[in-house]
Amino acid sequence: MKKFILYALIKEDMVDEYVRLHENAWPEIYKVIAESNFHNYSISIRGNEVYTYYEYTGDDYDADTEKMNNNPIMKKWHVFTKPCFVRDENGKAYKPMKEIFFSP
Amino acid sequence: MKKFILYALIKEDMVDEYVRLHENAWPEIYKVIAESNFHNYSISIRGNEVYTYYEYTGDDYDADTEKMNNNPIMKKWHVFTKPCFVRDENGKAYKPMKEIFFSP
Repeated sequence: MKKFILYALIKEDMVDEYVRLHENAWPEIYKVIAESNFHNYSISIRGNEVYTYYEYTGDDYDADTEKMNNNPIMKKWHVFTKPCFVRDENGKAYKPMKEIFFSP
Repeated sequence: MKKFILYALIKEDMVDEYVRLHENAWPEIYKVIAESNFHNYSISIRGNEVYTYYEYTGDDYDADTEKMNNNPIMKKWHVFTKPCFVRDENGKAYKPMKEIFFSP
């Protein structure tokens, strides 16, 4: 298992939309995520700051990420969610955070 | 199990100290945390922003928190870690984040 902890900013005027979408995520989204070997996928928010945590349990991260993102339902989901993010000059929304302590 | 996701700010000039402490946490700290029913206790950092995640698996949160904080080793640990935090007018360092999405 490999864990990922990411930070992102939501556009101020898209925060409500982003929260509403995720609090009412389509049932298929949970299915696609789990079937692509992503688990304990958690998104938390404070103001317009978003903290995303997930665990990857498969053995080909790139292939599973591509599989998940090419799923027709996920593609539709991204039509709504992708415009919510503040992006840097390279179009990147997510910045990795560094885990400095873990106690099982 | 109840999960907690918290946000805090570290004083700019204490970030290195905070990271160094946690990357070299004393073995007893992990033991005290687990024995107090706190698990998957994870601290991540980006700049001076800290995200803390933990799960509580006991049935008396206040009593277990008190037990953990009154442990002599934890008290010593806090001598080093507590001064690292930016605090609000009430002395509070941690702000709760809201989990808006979870996919098992």
